[in-house]
Amino acid sequence: MSATLDLAMDLIRRPSVTPRDEGCQALLAERLAALGFRIEPMPFGDVTNLWARRGETGPLVCLAGHTDVVPPGPLDQWHSDPFVPEVRDGQLYGRGACDMKGAIAAMVTAVADFLDGRPEPPGSLAFLITSDEEGPAVDGTVKVIETLAARSERIDYCLVGEPSCQRQLGDTIKIGRRGSLSGYLTVHGRQGHVAYPHRAKNPLHACVEQLAVLCAEIWDQGNAHFPPTSFQIANLNMGTGAENVIPDRLAAQFNLRFSTELDATTIQRRVAEILDRGDFRYDLRWVLSGQPFLTHAGELVAATCAAIAAVTGLEAERSTSGGTSDGRFIAPTGAQVVEFGPVNATIHQANECVGVAELDQLTSIYRGLLERLLPR
Amino acid sequence: MSATLDLAMDLIRRPSVTPRDEGCQALLAERLAALGFRIEPMPFGDVTNLWARRGETGPLVCLAGHTDVVPPGPLDQWHSDPFVPEVRDGQLYGRGACDMKGAIAAMVTAVADFLDGRPEPPGSLAFLITSDEEGPAVDGTVKVIETLAARSERIDYCLVGEPSCQRQLGDTIKIGRRGSLSGYLTVHGRQGHVAYPHRAKNPLHACVEQLAVLCAEIWDQGNAHFPPTSFQIANLNMGTGAENVIPDRLAAQFNLRFSTELDATTIQRRVAEILDRGDFRYDLRWVLSGQPFLTHAGELVAATCAAIAAVTGLEAERSTSGGTSDGRFIAPTGAQVVEFGPVNATIHQANECVGVAELDQLTSIYRGLLERLLPR
Repeated sequence: MSATLDLAMDLIRRPSVTPRDEGCQALLAERLAALGFRIEPMPFGDVTNLWARRGETGPLVCLAGHTDVVPPGPLDQWHSDPFVPEVRDGQLYGRGACDMKGAIAAMVTAVADFLDGRPEPPGSLAFLITSDEEGPAVDGTVKVIETLAARSERIDYCLVGEPSCQRQLGDTIKIGRRGSLSGYLTVHGRQGHVAYPHRAKNPLHACVEQLAVLCAEIWDQGNAHFPPTSFQIANLNMGTGAENVIPDRLAAQFNLRFSTELDATTIQRRVAEILDRGDFRYDLRWVLSGQPFLTHAGELVAATCAAIAAVTGLEAERSTSGGTSDGRFIAPTGAQVVEFGPVNATIHQANECVGVAELDQLTSIYRGLLERLLPR
Repeated sequence: MSATLDLAMDLIRRPSVTPRDEGCQALLAERLAALGFRIEPMPFGDVTNLWARRGETGPLVCLAGHTDVVPPGPLDQWHSDPFVPEVRDGQLYGRGACDMKGAIAAMVTAVADFLDGRPEPPGSLAFLITSDEEGPAVDGTVKVIETLAARSERIDYCLVGEPSCQRQLGDTIKIGRRGSLSGYLTVHGRQGHVAYPHRAKNPLHACVEQLAVLCAEIWDQGNAHFPPTSFQIANLNMGTGAENVIPDRLAAQFNLRFSTELDATTIQRRVAEILDRGDFRYDLRWVLSGQPFLTHAGELVAATCAAIAAVTGLEAERSTSGGTSDGRFIAPTGAQVVEFGPVNATIHQANECVGVAELDQLTSIYRGLLERLLPR
């Protein structure tokens, strides 16, 4: 059994559903301390975070990830206990096997192998591990980054081990993510009887033209790395069910996934400009889940792709698709950020699994990445 | 105490919340039988209906109304028991005092007074009373009308005693009502993640332009008796609350109040034409609550206005405003239909009341109407 598989199984045995860590980070800290890392727990609220660094000089290469997992869901859909790791037909089964305890184990083994060959590399290594990536993500990575920024500790390269691949290991890396901005709109009208509309003000009738404009708006054309910005109304509710009553308000929630061609402030201004053309009163609350980020071609992207090609023979696609990740918190510091990890076919599902051979290949790729970023 | 007030109080004591009659019609039948009416109960389902006729020749003057009342609502808002009639400060309080047990009592007294002077009038008199005007109105007046039509019994003039007045008795009669047509629209899309809108189809985005057209549409200009047709969306719901999911369907309910310039078939065709311009699949179900009707200037309108003027000195406004009434079922038979009853300020409210003097005036007006329609 490889060291990576062994550590992955040890981590899966700890039922660390967000935000509980259940000793995962203590186990990692023990391994990393033995490799010469300085261990620094950074708890915030009920979230367990770990910052571990080895070396004082730059560049600083950070390996980032999370020990928390999503709940297993209905247990009768699992063929084995989600928190008892089991290898069947070359796959390691268990909650978190793929997202992302397998990748964390691969990172630790890769670092151990890397240091075995060159105990004094030209630069520093660090691990940034949180127990709240799958949850609200308020007391996790973002707080660690704030702590580092406050003491001017700066990450140069960050590899996030999220499962990025689609069909086979090495087919995709993520070099950025779109931003995500949600709007909560309330349009105020005046209640009344449908038989007397002149005495009421129908909030939908008042704003429907502006809603149509918002839905048809072309926000940008995207760019080489991002598709055009999208606007989607996910919820719109008006009326209590009473069929003869014009209701007094309408509530809508919409979300924009936006490229690096736009920023949240510009979007908010443009939405308000469109709504303000209508003759109605409204409230609009915004929640910014993440600014978009993009790691342009550079040392990290090049090293990751080269390491992937050396192990798998594949030329990885450089993608910005998908939801948000903790990369959104790290990229604004100026760090180059790339996400690379296993095939994501089974994440968040029953019978989550990762290939045993895939874990060993992943270990080799991570090691190759370190060798390329911190050469002799 | 006048005979009208006495009978009104007897009726209020019977808690006849729709569709229960609680003996109201039995009481009326007893009074009408004593006046020479032939009593014909017409129960349908759980609804009690009464058809009572006196005379065999034409013209047939019908007095129509309902014994059912709406529920009293929160009892602590009533200053006296809603089903124990009480006179305070010249007002008779109780559920149904105004809508419309007071008017029914006035009708019975008016007929007794009228027959006292001329026991063999040139024509026939009838009462059409239902216990389901405030409810679904499926087994009430409409079924009685069908029964009469099946045996070719034809009403010439119908006075419906609904509370038609706004500020004082005699200020308003209703000579028609708008039609009411409701549409239940389901727009089908395809569910998906908001981050991948190209893999989904947002049902609101698909139809919002057509909704805007429907809201802005000018359906007609109305006419001398009716305001323009109105279109109002009363309910529109999409989304389950999940903020990152494009839902697979949208449900809307809308209502048109339409004038005699339009009919339901034309409206349905025009709505479908607008929706069909969009690129989406939909289901649309229609419910016609009532065709519009209008009683043009004629003997009934003239007699009602003359009787009102003789008692009150007022020239009644001839209105078609307001919701639907059972007049919608009677007018299509070719009968002239007018609605006239007390001031409607307190109907469906706590502490519903009608003026004691108003009831006696109403009795005089109804009697004057009969004298004018069936002169010696």
